Amino acid sequence: MDLVCLDLEGVLVPEVWINVAKATGVDSLSLTTRDIPDYDTLMRHRLGLLDEHNLSLDDIQAVIGEMAPLPGATDFLDWLRRRGPVVILSDTFTQFAAPLMRQLGWPTLFCHQLEVDENSRITDYTLRIKDHKRLAVEAFRALRFTVTAVGDSYNDTTMLTAADKGILFRAPDNVIREFPQFPHVNDYDSLATAIAT
Amino acid sequence: MDLVCLDLEGVLVPEVWINVAKATGVDSLSLTTRDIPDYDTLMRHRLGLLDEHNLSLDDIQAVIGEMAPLPGATDFLDWLRRRGPVVILSDTFTQFAAPLMRQLGWPTLFCHQLEVDENSRITDYTLRIKDHKRLAVEAFRALRFTVTAVGDSYNDTTMLTAADKGILFRAPDNVIREFPQFPHVNDYDSLATAIAT
Repeated sequence: MDLVCLDLEGVLVPEVWINVAKATGVDSLSLTTRDIPDYDTLMRHRLGLLDEHNLSLDDIQAVIGEMAPLPGATDFLDWLRRRGPVVILSDTFTQFAAPLMRQLGWPTLFCHQLEVDENSRITDYTLRIKDHKRLAVEAFRALRFTVTAVGDSYNDTTMLTAADKGILFRAPDNVIREFPQFPHVNDYDSLATAIAT
Repeated sequence: MDLVCLDLEGVLVPEVWINVAKATGVDSLSLTTRDIPDYDTLMRHRLGLLDEHNLSLDDIQAVIGEMAPLPGATDFLDWLRRRGPVVILSDTFTQFAAPLMRQLGWPTLFCHQLEVDENSRITDYTLRIKDHKRLAVEAFRALRFTVTAVGDSYNDTTMLTAADKGILFRAPDNVIREFPQFPHVNDYDSLATAIAT
């Protein structure tokens, strides 16, 4: 029985932090795991910038509230959910994800949580568990699912390796070059074909 | 971070086999895990009856196509999916579940598969893995989720025991009596309260 694990940002929705960077004018908020593979280093950098520029969770949620899934993502996900179980594995936070999950029809999402004080200042973040994408894929395989994993960046490569089938979707050239063992596709029709065959 | 596991039949949708028994007039197809706790014994009994009465997968799917989720189930599930990840753990089969999953907005379902020949005769069934409900709950807890499990019958009690919180929903008296350690509720409002508190 097949189960598909999808990364969220870059695969179904735009990169949240890139949009926050654009909307706030704080350019270096646009760095992602594509640029800084170590997630804790990246998040400390982001939280420092938010404090420096006095940006609260409310400010970021206002930006996310204007975002929509990538064109074609909702139809693709609807098709995929008809086929069998789908779990979205993301390093985003519940507080960021909700407006996008609503637009995607509330698929199942495993992610992390922000710690926020009474003034809407993001004080810290809680990783539910380190390398959770890989661990979730391994858990699903132990439950005897045949797992396909789809992602676009460094933080997806351990789950792609752990899966029965790993697929890169709209990955940057450096990731494609460093992980030649994974097929890479750039549109949802090709992704559907790569998953189904 | 919370994750909720729900049984399907009896919790969100009617018992499929009871409806098949009614529609086909084969009364003893109405036995469920509430009556015969050992699932393999129950399924061998069902497959024998289907053969004896010449009932195919097409016949059963015709019955399921007329079924709808329990009144209030879709609203309850929508509420629950807004709160966090939900996984439905069921001993049903993918071939039976699809028309009901569509009506529920394609939540994530872990279940089993029927083996069907070219004449739509159900020849066998494949349990993806034995005691999969308990194993899934244990896997989610190992991924550092706080797991609430909701079910109504014998085949749910191992997952209720493995969860951080187990809740019986519309369970028959014998299950309530044998498992007094679990709170039991009979409507979705009370279930929502029991999950949230």
